[in-house]
Amino acid sequence: MSDDPRAQLLPAIHAARSGAASGGIPIGSALFIDGKLIATGHNRRVQDGSVIHHAEMNCLENAGRLPAADYARATLVTTLSPCDMCTGAVLLYGIPRVIIGENRTFLGGEELLRSRGVDVTVLDDPECTEMMTTFIASHSALWAEDIGQDATEGTM
Amino acid sequence: MSDDPRAQLLPAIHAARSGAASGGIPIGSALFIDGKLIATGHNRRVQDGSVIHHAEMNCLENAGRLPAADYARATLVTTLSPCDMCTGAVLLYGIPRVIIGENRTFLGGEELLRSRGVDVTVLDDPECTEMMTTFIASHSALWAEDIGQDATEGTM
Repeated sequence: MSDDPRAQLLPAIHAARSGAASGGIPIGSALFIDGKLIATGHNRRVQDGSVIHHAEMNCLENAGRLPAADYARATLVTTLSPCDMCTGAVLLYGIPRVIIGENRTFLGGEELLRSRGVDVTVLDDPECTEMMTTFIASHSALWAEDIGQDATEGTM
Repeated sequence: MSDDPRAQLLPAIHAARSGAASGGIPIGSALFIDGKLIATGHNRRVQDGSVIHHAEMNCLENAGRLPAADYARATLVTTLSPCDMCTGAVLLYGIPRVIIGENRTFLGGEELLRSRGVDVTVLDDPECTEMMTTFIASHSALWAEDIGQDATEGTM
């Protein structure tokens, strides 16, 4: 698997579309170690009634228990800027690199990640932005819930 | 249920001991809304092979999908200072109050919580400290893994 960020974004987009196809929030994630795809995941709020399985969390869970030395060589890819919770998970496990599809529809903890030494790349990918724009327009209350806001605060 | 922090710590300690009794890491959590106990949870790394079900996360998951207005009236109780991930979950959902059993064996994101306006109370509870001290002494590698460190870094 390539180390190219845009190539690494593809399995995350695929996971996001898979989540959407099962009625869920279209955010996907992928974990690479040494350039090799280890796991993917997507938001499971709708599918499992989960408040902690954001895409990045679901991806880390799917990757399973890993030693710190593995996380230290990992790249976490996400189609959308990571919220405070997912930002915290990156910091907890010491993941040194995060690739973000887009941050136009939601801006998460990128500044905190950078302040703690994480290499953050934002691709500003039109496909990721389009997925979220379409989703938010039709599911504003669900989106607000997913980011801990009142329904009236759900769009940015 | 009382609003007294030490009374609110008890169900979290009970959850921690329940987790330990099933072979797990002895950290527990409880969520209160308007002083009423909504859910408890404990670390499930051992039981479920989970890297995201820290006690606080498990507790939030057990509480289920809640509107922002509910989180805004909530208190999250945890036997141990919350790691970066659990700190981020508190921030994501806008939980205004966190009660911590102890932070002697591990100091998490208390400063970040306070900087974002969260009311943090540390009880320095001897029972919580004893649970973790005993656990860390006998399971240093497991504890290191749970906080994203190398085995040699697992004790503080």
